[in-house]
Amino acid sequence: MTNQQDAIATIYEPIREQLTQVDSKLRALADEGDFILKELVGHTSQAGGKKMRPAITLLASRFHPNDGTLPNLMAAAVELLHVASLVHDDSVDNADVRRGIATVSKLWGDGVAVLLGDYLFATSAVFVCDTGNIKVVRRFADTIRELSQGELMESFGAFQWDRDFAEYTRRIYNKTASLFRTSAEGGAILSGADDEIVQAFVEYGYGIGMAFQIVDDILDFEGTEDEIGKPVGHDLLQGTLTLPAMLLLERYPESNPVIRIFKGEDPKANRQLAIEMIRNSSIIEDSYAVARGYLDTAATAIKILPDTTEHRSLLALLDYVTERKL
Amino acid sequence: MTNQQDAIATIYEPIREQLTQVDSKLRALADEGDFILKELVGHTSQAGGKKMRPAITLLASRFHPNDGTLPNLMAAAVELLHVASLVHDDSVDNADVRRGIATVSKLWGDGVAVLLGDYLFATSAVFVCDTGNIKVVRRFADTIRELSQGELMESFGAFQWDRDFAEYTRRIYNKTASLFRTSAEGGAILSGADDEIVQAFVEYGYGIGMAFQIVDDILDFEGTEDEIGKPVGHDLLQGTLTLPAMLLLERYPESNPVIRIFKGEDPKANRQLAIEMIRNSSIIEDSYAVARGYLDTAATAIKILPDTTEHRSLLALLDYVTERKL
Repeated sequence: MTNQQDAIATIYEPIREQLTQVDSKLRALADEGDFILKELVGHTSQAGGKKMRPAITLLASRFHPNDGTLPNLMAAAVELLHVASLVHDDSVDNADVRRGIATVSKLWGDGVAVLLGDYLFATSAVFVCDTGNIKVVRRFADTIRELSQGELMESFGAFQWDRDFAEYTRRIYNKTASLFRTSAEGGAILSGADDEIVQAFVEYGYGIGMAFQIVDDILDFEGTEDEIGKPVGHDLLQGTLTLPAMLLLERYPESNPVIRIFKGEDPKANRQLAIEMIRNSSIIEDSYAVARGYLDTAATAIKILPDTTEHRSLLALLDYVTERKL
Repeated sequence: MTNQQDAIATIYEPIREQLTQVDSKLRALADEGDFILKELVGHTSQAGGKKMRPAITLLASRFHPNDGTLPNLMAAAVELLHVASLVHDDSVDNADVRRGIATVSKLWGDGVAVLLGDYLFATSAVFVCDTGNIKVVRRFADTIRELSQGELMESFGAFQWDRDFAEYTRRIYNKTASLFRTSAEGGAILSGADDEIVQAFVEYGYGIGMAFQIVDDILDFEGTEDEIGKPVGHDLLQGTLTLPAMLLLERYPESNPVIRIFKGEDPKANRQLAIEMIRNSSIIEDSYAVARGYLDTAATAIKILPDTTEHRSLLALLDYVTERKL
C-alpha cells in the first residue's frame, strides 16, 4: 500500500464495515442484470476509485443513532451516480482509459456508453427512491441536473479565455461540489439528524467538493504525468479554463500563452510555457490558498459536532484533499 | 389539418385545456436554463409530436376528483422523459433529422446530445419529485432503467436472427410499453383513485404501449417512405428483428432474406425481397392481430370505469393506434 492508501484506510476506519456492505451492494448489481448488462456493469465495478463520496455519506450518517440501512442505500447511490457520470464523460471526451482500465466507450462504442450511463443513472435513482425520503430523492435529481449543466458549461465555454471567477465557481459547483454536498447532506438527513446538523453537512460537502475540484485543477499543472494519469496541462489543450490558468491570465492580460493556446497558436509550446510560468510563480500556492479557504469553511461548519472518531475522520479527509496526488 | 390530426384533436378534447398547461410548463423550461441551455431546450421543444404519453396521463387522472396539479406535473415529466430518450437515441443512431428538424447531435455533436439528454432526464425526474409521491417517483426511475435496458437489448441483439418472441416481447416492453404504462399508472395514482382503478390503468398503459410499438414495427414494412419518414425496411438494415420479420423467418426458416441481410449478403436487394414477401403474405394482417390482442386487453382492463367522455377517448385512442400512419 502507498502512503495515500494508508491514509485513506485510516480515515475510513470507523465506517470500514459499512463501506464493505456498500461495495457488495454495488457488485451485486452486476449479477442481477439481463445478459450483456452483467458484463457491462461488471466492467464498471472493476476499477476501484477512492470511494470518497460514499465515505462522506456514511461518516455524515454517524451523528444520530440509526441502523445504517438508509445511509448504505444513499452511499451506494452516490457512488453509482459518480460512475454513471464517468461513463458519459468518457464518451463525451473520447477517453480510452479510466482508472487504469479501458473505458466502456473504447470497448463497446459511444452508443453503448450512452445507454449504459443512462441505466446506471436510473439505477442510482432507484437506490435513493428505496430510502423512501422524497426530499433526498429530489436533491439527488437536482444533482444530476447540476452535473450535466456543469459539463455543458465546460463544453460550450471551451477555448474562451474571458470568463470570470464567478463562472468558474458556478461551473465547479455544478460539476463536482454538488454531488459532494448531496453525499454529505443525504447521509445526515437519512440518519435522522436534526436540521442544524444537516445544514452543517450541506456546508461541509460543499466546501470539500469545491476544494477537491480546485486541487484537481492545480494538479493538472503541478503533478507529473505519472501522478495524474494524463499529460500535464491537459485541461488547457481541451480548452478548459481553470483557476491556475485564470490567475496567470490576470497577471499577464496582454500577451499570454493561455490565450495563444485557445486561439490554436502552437498549443504544445505554449502549454509548456504556461506550465513553467505557473510553476515559477506563486500561482500554485495562491490556488491552494483558495482551496484551503473552502476546506476551512467545511471544518468550521462541523465544529458543532461532538468530538468522535467520525468527526476526526471528516477533518482528516479535508487535509487529505490538499495532500493527495491523484 | 389532416384526418389524423383531426382524430387526435377530438380524442384529446376533454383534456385540451390541461394539455395546453403542460405544454406551457415544458416551454417555460427553455427560459429558466443558463445561457446555452435556453437554446438547446428551446430546440427540443420546437418539434411537436403527438403528445400521446401526457394525454394518457391526463385522461387516466380524470376518474377521481382532483385539481389537476399533480397529473399536470406527471404529464410534463413523461413527455420530457420521452424527449430525453429521443435525444440520446439520435446520438446512438447517428440520426440527422427527427420530426422534421435537425437533431441535437447533428447540430451540436454527440457529446452535447449526451449531456443535454442527461439534463432533460434529470429535469423530468425533478418534475415527478414535485408530485411528492415516492411510489410514482420510484416507478419513474424504474422506467428509465427499463428504457435503457431495452435499447441495450436492441443494440447488442442486432443482426441476430435466432431470437424468440419472448425476447421481442420483453424488448418492446422495455423500450416502449414501460413508459406508456407509467404514464397511465402515474395519472391514476396522482388523481387519488383507488387501487382497482390504478391497476386497470397499469394494464391499459401496458396494452396500448405494446400495440403502439408493434404497429411501429409493422409500418416499417407496410408504410411508404413518405408516411414513416425513413426508408421502408429500415429496421432490417439496422439489424433490428421485429415481429413481421420474425413471422417471415418462422415461415421460411431455411433460406430467408432476413438471414441474408443480417449476414451482410446484398442487403438492398434482400430488403426489397423481404418487404415483398411480407406484403404478399398474411404477415401484415397477422401482426395487426397481435397488436389488436394487446389493444383488447387494454379495452377490457378499463371496462370497470364509468362511461364518460374520458373513457370514450381512451377507447378511441386504442383504435387510433392501428389506424395511424406515423
